[in-house]
Amino acid sequence: MEFSVAKADLLKELSFLNNVVEKKTTIPILSNILLSGEAGSAPAGNVLTLAGTDLDATLKTSCPAAIRHSGTALLPARRLFDIVRNLPDADIHFKSDGSGNMTITCERSRFRLFSPAPEGYPALPEIPALPLSVSSGILRTMIPRVLFATSQEESRYQLNGVQMVVDSAAADESQAALLRMVATDGHRLALIERPGCVQLNAGAPVEKSKVEKGKTRISFLIPKKTMAEIVRLAADTTATEIAFGQDDRHVFFQIGGRTFASRLLAGQFPNYEGVMPKSNDKIIVFETDLLVAALKRVGVVADETTHAVKLHATEGRVEITSQSPESGEAVETLSVDYPGPSMTITFNVGYLMDFLAVAHSTQTRFEFKDEITQIQLRPVDGDGYDYRYVVMPMRA
Amino acid sequence: MEFSVAKADLLKELSFLNNVVEKKTTIPILSNILLSGEAGSAPAGNVLTLAGTDLDATLKTSCPAAIRHSGTALLPARRLFDIVRNLPDADIHFKSDGSGNMTITCERSRFRLFSPAPEGYPALPEIPALPLSVSSGILRTMIPRVLFATSQEESRYQLNGVQMVVDSAAADESQAALLRMVATDGHRLALIERPGCVQLNAGAPVEKSKVEKGKTRISFLIPKKTMAEIVRLAADTTATEIAFGQDDRHVFFQIGGRTFASRLLAGQFPNYEGVMPKSNDKIIVFETDLLVAALKRVGVVADETTHAVKLHATEGRVEITSQSPESGEAVETLSVDYPGPSMTITFNVGYLMDFLAVAHSTQTRFEFKDEITQIQLRPVDGDGYDYRYVVMPMRA
Repeated sequence: MEFSVAKADLLKELSFLNNVVEKKTTIPILSNILLSGEAGSAPAGNVLTLAGTDLDATLKTSCPAAIRHSGTALLPARRLFDIVRNLPDADIHFKSDGSGNMTITCERSRFRLFSPAPEGYPALPEIPALPLSVSSGILRTMIPRVLFATSQEESRYQLNGVQMVVDSAAADESQAALLRMVATDGHRLALIERPGCVQLNAGAPVEKSKVEKGKTRISFLIPKKTMAEIVRLAADTTATEIAFGQDDRHVFFQIGGRTFASRLLAGQFPNYEGVMPKSNDKIIVFETDLLVAALKRVGVVADETTHAVKLHATEGRVEITSQSPESGEAVETLSVDYPGPSMTITFNVGYLMDFLAVAHSTQTRFEFKDEITQIQLRPVDGDGYDYRYVVMPMRA
Repeated sequence: MEFSVAKADLLKELSFLNNVVEKKTTIPILSNILLSGEAGSAPAGNVLTLAGTDLDATLKTSCPAAIRHSGTALLPARRLFDIVRNLPDADIHFKSDGSGNMTITCERSRFRLFSPAPEGYPALPEIPALPLSVSSGILRTMIPRVLFATSQEESRYQLNGVQMVVDSAAADESQAALLRMVATDGHRLALIERPGCVQLNAGAPVEKSKVEKGKTRISFLIPKKTMAEIVRLAADTTATEIAFGQDDRHVFFQIGGRTFASRLLAGQFPNYEGVMPKSNDKIIVFETDLLVAALKRVGVVADETTHAVKLHATEGRVEITSQSPESGEAVETLSVDYPGPSMTITFNVGYLMDFLAVAHSTQTRFEFKDEITQIQLRPVDGDGYDYRYVVMPMRA
């Protein structure tokens, strides 16, 4: 294998591949990336394809290159990245000696890296035709608004991801479908949805099993690491539409010239529809900045284990308080438009802060029913999204 | 005790105090800061003094305040900082209830913090008259250029600091003295000095024991944590001159309105004068940027334990190489003005990078004698400083 590639082109792809390849190297060959290219007339002779995987997630990408001799090779991902990012902004020439070594030259630098036999590399998932598509801006808005609510406990594997649902209530498949994302750790739940934003692509039909009575409903339970990577990839593409779809075990995203495949999480995502409060008829609207500052201050004095803060709502105002035996107590008073009745609800302050940090809304609605029912938070200006965050109160 | 203080004034001082107070809280009372103020007519009634210590280092500072009732109080440093930085930009009112609580109010926020009895706080070192002074810019230049070379091994306590020397070779004390700083971890040594930059203050004479045959030579072995803090404090002052001096066990720096006291390190700093190479007559001048980029690349392939790279100097060029059984090999070629003879010297690449990162010099001189004698690096443009860095070659 022999090819030349511009430093900047290669570096960009290596930086994404490095997010994917196995860091623990329990399986040493997975610390490599797979490079391949076919010599010949354009366009094939002008493209280097690259792939990396940790067996859970796989990124396939490509960059412009001049392929002199066809071939396939493995190179250590981290080491190659560290070399390339420190090279001058020039062409880099790769040549394998056919016996396990790759020579890399660029101006006055020369490297010889061990290049294991590509036969040992795992087979990567085949990418099927992708029946769905959504704008990259919508993915970048929705994912961070639910991702923080996934569980940090690895053993609760079905909570270690985001449930993504495409829902077409309409019989007519030419109509765009709703996209919903949900995440929960069992203590709080974030849900965001947007109607009419997923295009169904007639050329790659959705599996028959997903269509019932003319409605299409497709669910994907996607690992949180994958969702974080999709945000990064969607932020770097000039493509406005991202195609996606699934096979039995994987979800696929086509983001410009890059394809990201991820295994789906096994297990059943909880029935979140039953958790969403239906009769939270008491509403307080907060100025988000004032609320965040008050919670930060009160949080300093909160109990270090429970992080409990109390919200006392009375006519026209809210007092937010905390106290702990080791530090003292705090009282914050906010004027609000609330007619009563008086109510005291206790929360983990961290759960509220997590939501307020990603919601980016000038005003925030608290919707509650009584002192023990789950509360619901939402931005006052949803900007086309229906975004809801549900938190269980603590026992006072 | 009762006083009011502007949020911004207090926050600035708390941020410095937080760098000093004990984080491990093995002695709980040291997690507090000591506040005191005396009511009365200006100026005394307009000043709140604050102090924090971890017993090794002590910061005394002050800020404008309106003292209504005199007193002294302890408050938890971290908690107070976290509250104050999240308060609105307004006046904060402090009032102690005389029985272990401090009430803090600011606009619509109210806190009650436990305030332990100040009698339990350790006595802080008395600040003597300080006989020496140097410009803050000079301290900020010199300290980072040696600090990185201190030892990371806590057990080698005499190498856990910077040796600072004031040397007045002149009999006439009205003449400014030389300032030198040296640090070493036993494998490499950094030394920087500048003549004529320390003023001797006739009003606070240097101890007689430091004056021999009309020459003054004062040495301070100062913990690295203290030196790092002096850089931060010197960067934040409008004072151009920093006074300093010592008592038996402490060094003191007066930086604007803040005084930093630190215990001196016990033990004898190594005899560095014997280490400085005297006959390194072979010289190579590198463009620093090119050298740094080459070392970064070669370092990627260096042995992960030894970090060894080889520098082969021959007439007109230098090859920098590395190799390791796990990754392969690297060769970088740099054109230099070197007449020979051929020479191969092996180094820990990290030691070279550490120096090049702080030296901020467009060109760097390598001075060496043979393949086994310590080499010396220095910036080509010293900018009024004599800055030298000595590294022992590795056995090839």
